[in-house]
Amino acid sequence: MDCSTVRRFDVVLSSDVLDPHNPALADLVGSDRGLVVMDGALGAAYRARLDRYLATRLPGFHVLSLAVSEQHKTMGTVLDICAAAQDAGLARREVLVALGGGVCCDLVSVAATLVRRGLPYVTVPTTLVAQVDAGIGLKGAVNFGGGKNYLGCFTPPAGVLVDPDFLRTVQPPELVSGLAEMVKIGLVRDADLVAALTAHGGRLVASGFTQPAGLGARLIARSIQLMLEELAADPYEEFELRRLADFGHTFSGRLEELSGYALRHGEAVAIDMALSSAVACETGHLTDAALAEILSVLLHLGLPITTDLATEASLLDAMRATARHRAGALNLVVPTAVGAATFLPKLSDVDVGTLARARRRIDSHASAQLQPAPLRPAPLEPAPSDLRPTVGLP
Amino acid sequence: MDCSTVRRFDVVLSSDVLDPHNPALADLVGSDRGLVVMDGALGAAYRARLDRYLATRLPGFHVLSLAVSEQHKTMGTVLDICAAAQDAGLARREVLVALGGGVCCDLVSVAATLVRRGLPYVTVPTTLVAQVDAGIGLKGAVNFGGGKNYLGCFTPPAGVLVDPDFLRTVQPPELVSGLAEMVKIGLVRDADLVAALTAHGGRLVASGFTQPAGLGARLIARSIQLMLEELAADPYEEFELRRLADFGHTFSGRLEELSGYALRHGEAVAIDMALSSAVACETGHLTDAALAEILSVLLHLGLPITTDLATEASLLDAMRATARHRAGALNLVVPTAVGAATFLPKLSDVDVGTLARARRRIDSHASAQLQPAPLRPAPLEPAPSDLRPTVGLP
Repeated sequence: MDCSTVRRFDVVLSSDVLDPHNPALADLVGSDRGLVVMDGALGAAYRARLDRYLATRLPGFHVLSLAVSEQHKTMGTVLDICAAAQDAGLARREVLVALGGGVCCDLVSVAATLVRRGLPYVTVPTTLVAQVDAGIGLKGAVNFGGGKNYLGCFTPPAGVLVDPDFLRTVQPPELVSGLAEMVKIGLVRDADLVAALTAHGGRLVASGFTQPAGLGARLIARSIQLMLEELAADPYEEFELRRLADFGHTFSGRLEELSGYALRHGEAVAIDMALSSAVACETGHLTDAALAEILSVLLHLGLPITTDLATEASLLDAMRATARHRAGALNLVVPTAVGAATFLPKLSDVDVGTLARARRRIDSHASAQLQPAPLRPAPLEPAPSDLRPTVGLP
Repeated sequence: MDCSTVRRFDVVLSSDVLDPHNPALADLVGSDRGLVVMDGALGAAYRARLDRYLATRLPGFHVLSLAVSEQHKTMGTVLDICAAAQDAGLARREVLVALGGGVCCDLVSVAATLVRRGLPYVTVPTTLVAQVDAGIGLKGAVNFGGGKNYLGCFTPPAGVLVDPDFLRTVQPPELVSGLAEMVKIGLVRDADLVAALTAHGGRLVASGFTQPAGLGARLIARSIQLMLEELAADPYEEFELRRLADFGHTFSGRLEELSGYALRHGEAVAIDMALSSAVACETGHLTDAALAEILSVLLHLGLPITTDLATEASLLDAMRATARHRAGALNLVVPTAVGAATFLPKLSDVDVGTLARARRRIDSHASAQLQPAPLRPAPLEPAPSDLRPTVGLP
């Protein structure tokens, strides 16, 4: 029996999406009834704005305010959302909405997959990590039995609504963590994006992504566009389990777990990118100068490049766990230059000696950081052709 | 972003699939490692046969023997399966196998959807209900918060292996329950199938589907073929939420719940088919004679056509719950003759008076059952063109 399905979702950029004058959210939801799952940490002011918006535009919607941290990223919380959908009497085709960071989007994605074997869902990511990465794809997941993202799903959302205005109230360390995901996609795809982030990242973070005016939205749009291009070839990961967007996502999950999630996702990704880049250098894929540039960019943006948790044992353990998740292949993404990358396919491509030498390279760069390597010169603003604001990204 | 996926699965008929000489299961699994989830009620003899088969053909497979009844059809049991997959260190592309009835197939389908965001799974349904219905489609589900099948998924299996030899050890009441699903698909699609079941159902049940020789497998193959044809138009239920295979599945779930699952699935489906047929008669879609024939067929096969649980309140409640699950539409499947059916689309198409009159018709038929309506004459065996044994159904 043939089972085909063609789904499509749009990523829409807008601003001030909780202003009742803005129809974007109601348009994307496209249902009279539903349930908004809101990260309780957004606080009372956002809750009041959400309630006003719903009263005006979506009066048939319920709200569930939830504590969502990495510790709450469990099937238990998913089932709390399912129970709220059941209590609200949601019918098929009625909608779940995630208003929050990556964990909130993940939880809603899994719950929406399960309720009545699938309700439509819309994500409104409110953190930078979620806006450029965790909130925009098909993947939802929860942690299980010590395994990060061990249970989950591939379920396309009905739509994604990205509003950089939310970033005004995001704390600087969280913004820096989000920059790591933008740098990630830039390092494997787009040197101009890396240059723009390097030149303006500090000001963007300090201003809640409002300064330089308009640049934050443009760089976010560009990051999303690159991410969607990477996802598009194999959205359900049915074919090759290798994608450039997995750069920084081989060692990072294990490091997050070992830190008890004290390490932010973007910080762990930065440490993984540093290590993967040093491995690239050790295996002859990247020049010393390019490695120095990558490490300098990360440090310049306030991201870590090393941690005591990155021991030989934990790194080998992480590589083996990743290979199990990639059907036996390591598929380590390693940069070949700033803006381009390749894969090391096999576990045997990265042995203990290579890992040890890679770590020494990073330690030596970190200890020399008072005299960082020169950064690439960057234009004050990226070329408009690359980074135009995009509404309704493909 | 476009998200397309094309999957395909085969339903393979075989016999004696746990004989180590039979490669069918190992071929369908197509992986060196995996986990077989076995309904513990199959008992020690089947476990010993399974262990021998695995030792010979699939030595990298683990076995999890589980108590699976309707009471165990919960996310808790799904998570037990996920934990066993995690303990076994299963990698992506390694396989879950369900060996058991409909509940076992449902649980494995949901678990396989979630583990690592999707492992392949194979079902080996061992009951008649599962072989012709519950074990062969894309749908998996568990009960939740008093809602039957409230949480679940649409995930195509990697393959389905149907072996009528398992029916030799299934108790007669369970076989009768399975006949209800075969009668169901016959009543909406194929009068010849209904005639064959009527003529030979008693002997098939009494012989564990071994007599008349070969007929059981042919009727099962025909039922599966019709079921897959019904599923094929809209396998993910993305378009219209109406399908003829939902005949008997509007009131039945609520009745099962109200009985505390003392009522078997097929029994509840039979009561629902009787009621839906009487509604068809009341609304001018079915002749009195055809209704009498349908009710007689059900009674003749040993299936119930009424229950004290079918009160006005419970039936209205069931219709409303079903409509929520069909996005507001009732889409009650009603026969227009033996072998053909249509839909009553709206809740308002079936009012309290219609339900009451329909119930009176059934009660009056039931009380007159000592003199059943004459059954259609049936050929001793169905025409070979309709019911040829099928291996690798489309």
